[in-house]
Amino acid sequence: MDKKTELKVSALENGTVIDHIPVSYVLEVMRILDLEDYNDQIYLGANLESKKYGKKGLIKVSNRFFKDVEINKISLVAPTATLIEIRDYSVSRKSGVTIPDTVAGFAKCINPKCITNHQQIATKFYVTDKEDIKLKCHYCEKITKRQDLHFL
Amino acid sequence: MDKKTELKVSALENGTVIDHIPVSYVLEVMRILDLEDYNDQIYLGANLESKKYGKKGLIKVSNRFFKDVEINKISLVAPTATLIEIRDYSVSRKSGVTIPDTVAGFAKCINPKCITNHQQIATKFYVTDKEDIKLKCHYCEKITKRQDLHFL
Repeated sequence: MDKKTELKVSALENGTVIDHIPVSYVLEVMRILDLEDYNDQIYLGANLESKKYGKKGLIKVSNRFFKDVEINKISLVAPTATLIEIRDYSVSRKSGVTIPDTVAGFAKCINPKCITNHQQIATKFYVTDKEDIKLKCHYCEKITKRQDLHFL
Repeated sequence: MDKKTELKVSALENGTVIDHIPVSYVLEVMRILDLEDYNDQIYLGANLESKKYGKKGLIKVSNRFFKDVEINKISLVAPTATLIEIRDYSVSRKSGVTIPDTVAGFAKCINPKCITNHQQIATKFYVTDKEDIKLKCHYCEKITKRQDLHFL
């Protein structure tokens, strides 16, 4: 390593790497997964070189494996993401994220007048655009876009 | 490297490493330095092992060197931070941050009634506690604490 100064990053023993995150959504992915308050090791890289996308973001989380609902959240803000699960230093699973056809119970409708924002009714959306990510509310039919997405 | 999966982190050619950030203030340091919208490479590590502090955060920013006012901001949210400037792959400067005695023009007073929040008057504070970080407003004398700090 001669005289160069490197950030030493140890191999991940157990945990998940979220790769190919669109550059402007890296911190958003941190937020939706509640990683801001996580108390095990996290590495985050922003504006890294990517052959496929030019630039990308990446998050590496020790001792954490994501549930389906969390992976659905990731798919809506980072549709290009790849999830790599590491167990005992080896890749145990590698997959893209799949954008669901319906999103039930975990996203908030952008329409302040929507019934789901006033009564105890679980939200439900149809994903009408899987490229730009647009969610159409089952109740009020208003469209919630990717940049306006808030999770419950 | 046998079969272990590592996050490859390239050596920093030019830029700054902010080391020894208190764990709960890593993303706050990102925010106060406007690194959320920065478009060159950034690495962030949270909950890394530290001999000195148990756990620490670290941020590595390519092609960025911080100005005095930015270093003053860092000192107020991360008083334990070490700044390491890298030029041409070598450490050109390494220093702790120094908490200033007075903070003028870049922090916001927590008192909504303070004149600085209503008129075009630059804020000014005296740092009355350099351990817990407490800023006493020159105008209204109210105390703004570290966790309530907002920068202008």
